[in-house]
Amino acid sequence: MKLLDIETPALVLDKGILDRNLARMHEQVAGLGARLRPHVKTAKSIDVVRRAAASGEGGITVSTLKEAEQFFAAGYRDILYAVGIAPNKLNHVVAMRRRGCDLTVILDNIDAAQAVMAASAKNSIPIPALIEIDSDGHRAGVTPGNAALADIGRTLGANLRGVMTHAGGSYDCKSVEDIRGYARRERAEAARCAEQLRAAGLPCPMVSVGSTPTATVVENLAGVTEVRVGVYMFFDLFMAGLGVCTQNDIALSVLTSVIGHQPEKGWIITDAGWMALSRDHGTASQKIDQGYGVVCDIRGRAIDDFIVSSTNQEHGIVARRGRGVIDMSRFPVGTLLRVLPNHACATAAQHAAYHVVNGGVEIEAVWPRFSGW
Amino acid sequence: MKLLDIETPALVLDKGILDRNLARMHEQVAGLGARLRPHVKTAKSIDVVRRAAASGEGGITVSTLKEAEQFFAAGYRDILYAVGIAPNKLNHVVAMRRRGCDLTVILDNIDAAQAVMAASAKNSIPIPALIEIDSDGHRAGVTPGNAALADIGRTLGANLRGVMTHAGGSYDCKSVEDIRGYARRERAEAARCAEQLRAAGLPCPMVSVGSTPTATVVENLAGVTEVRVGVYMFFDLFMAGLGVCTQNDIALSVLTSVIGHQPEKGWIITDAGWMALSRDHGTASQKIDQGYGVVCDIRGRAIDDFIVSSTNQEHGIVARRGRGVIDMSRFPVGTLLRVLPNHACATAAQHAAYHVVNGGVEIEAVWPRFSGW
Repeated sequence: MKLLDIETPALVLDKGILDRNLARMHEQVAGLGARLRPHVKTAKSIDVVRRAAASGEGGITVSTLKEAEQFFAAGYRDILYAVGIAPNKLNHVVAMRRRGCDLTVILDNIDAAQAVMAASAKNSIPIPALIEIDSDGHRAGVTPGNAALADIGRTLGANLRGVMTHAGGSYDCKSVEDIRGYARRERAEAARCAEQLRAAGLPCPMVSVGSTPTATVVENLAGVTEVRVGVYMFFDLFMAGLGVCTQNDIALSVLTSVIGHQPEKGWIITDAGWMALSRDHGTASQKIDQGYGVVCDIRGRAIDDFIVSSTNQEHGIVARRGRGVIDMSRFPVGTLLRVLPNHACATAAQHAAYHVVNGGVEIEAVWPRFSGW
Repeated sequence: MKLLDIETPALVLDKGILDRNLARMHEQVAGLGARLRPHVKTAKSIDVVRRAAASGEGGITVSTLKEAEQFFAAGYRDILYAVGIAPNKLNHVVAMRRRGCDLTVILDNIDAAQAVMAASAKNSIPIPALIEIDSDGHRAGVTPGNAALADIGRTLGANLRGVMTHAGGSYDCKSVEDIRGYARRERAEAARCAEQLRAAGLPCPMVSVGSTPTATVVENLAGVTEVRVGVYMFFDLFMAGLGVCTQNDIALSVLTSVIGHQPEKGWIITDAGWMALSRDHGTASQKIDQGYGVVCDIRGRAIDDFIVSSTNQEHGIVARRGRGVIDMSRFPVGTLLRVLPNHACATAAQHAAYHVVNGGVEIEAVWPRFSGW
């Protein structure tokens, strides 16, 4: 089966690029003395994550309990659920721990810590928790230096397992040197908060950090026990715009067909709209706006300066950057194109399977992926 | 089972609002002498569409062959696939027609018409097709008055079933009067092209138009046989911004939990990020930017001027418009909120089921929905 034999739109994953990305990050993190705890939220695929964490001994990170369930069923046991725990999910967490899953939750406030303690006591089962640290003012977490840290730690008592942070602010950086600054701060604040807990007589065996940009460029992980990353598996145009990968490192693309032309407007109409590409237009805030994706030929080679300039639900409009003229005879109806995504997590989420290729057009496998909560 | 008893995030559908929206559009279109051919691309749910088109006698519209398959399996026979046909889908179309599905395709160029004719001849099966008309320069279609229309019609021969257009440009309108202009043009251009085909001695039994904005305000459908609409079932903040519904007509919302606070920033952190809400931020181009959604209490009543100001994959940040102060004690960890979506099609697409309520918090049913191609 070849890419030419399937219906469009369809998600394509290049295994050679994937494996190269996995190996590079593995070396990077191991070389700095930490463990890699891959985040499965980007791939949501057992087949993909098996290549990133074959043994599962370093554990995985999940963004939903659905991911936890799917990976636990596939044999992964050490799972960190890295979104602040909502009380309505605690029964589910308890049930998974009863079934033998070593599921750890995170939280950044006393109320959530009390809810965890109540569920733990009521069910006579430990619910290990990390305290989330806000290392860059980006989103959630306890501010380093805040006395609340030790209060939450004391509330958690025996359930306290450590601290975690995510340098999400690194996504807004304008240079690799900026990203290095976020990486330094991410490490330093996590290590400082761990010391703060230890100074208060509390245990802190886990010190978890991570984001794909910071993990890619970080030079020192002293005091950190593990790194969480997900996007690095596939990379995307946003990461290329940040400078942490090149366009050639992007393993994911969406296969689409030309269905018509509007030559006076310089438009090629395709059957991959936002449903197939996602609504993510993250590169709009970067130096180079890639529209809804960079357009490649069927083998994944970028075509001139062709981008998806706009999308509707099941329609994409391909145009040249700067509205240059297109020789439509090169792209007759039925031509197959591949679109590199702005954001791998968002684009992959729109699909139920990866069509796996290895540099060519032969489909070597179809790997299912899941979605939902 | 109540909304309080389920895990978040979850999609909520208010049946009372849905039924009111369905009845209103049904009366509107029937009152103007046309048939309603509901577009199932928004709901992707048999349960929802049964309420919109119980008998199915007016047919339905689909945006993917997956929708066609699902609805054909549920007993719908007259199905219009309203995205320009790609050659790699013709075998699938032939197979569905062989199984008794009265599937009609659309196209806007000679190459696609020839591909349809070749598949039709090779398989000795009719493949009815409509010619897509570009009534507003918005996307695809033959420009009215262009001689290509009759050429395509002649190429299709006995497979020609009529014309269709979609006034997608109406989504950019700044007033209801503007939308009426699009509605008039949509009708007039479709009717004109139908006459052009008839004048060339070609049959044109179907004259199909539609978009939720134009269908809501149109006053005359002379020469039109049917209207295609989908978003009207649920409506959304974008439609409210256009003035074709009010916020009280929005049947869809996403249930979410408060998981933390960043009081110095005026932020409430929730567990509904872009994965649950979608990345659609359509109201950013309208007079009132609603962020990633308007925040309501658990009963669906909007709270002051609270919006989701930003999102990550599984995190939402709720803030007051203009960064006003929030009394965090009103929203403790675990508080349930409901978020009205920018774009019903995009938000619903992120979920596998509707939790059906009727004005309250009791879950009366769970209706599955599907996705993919």
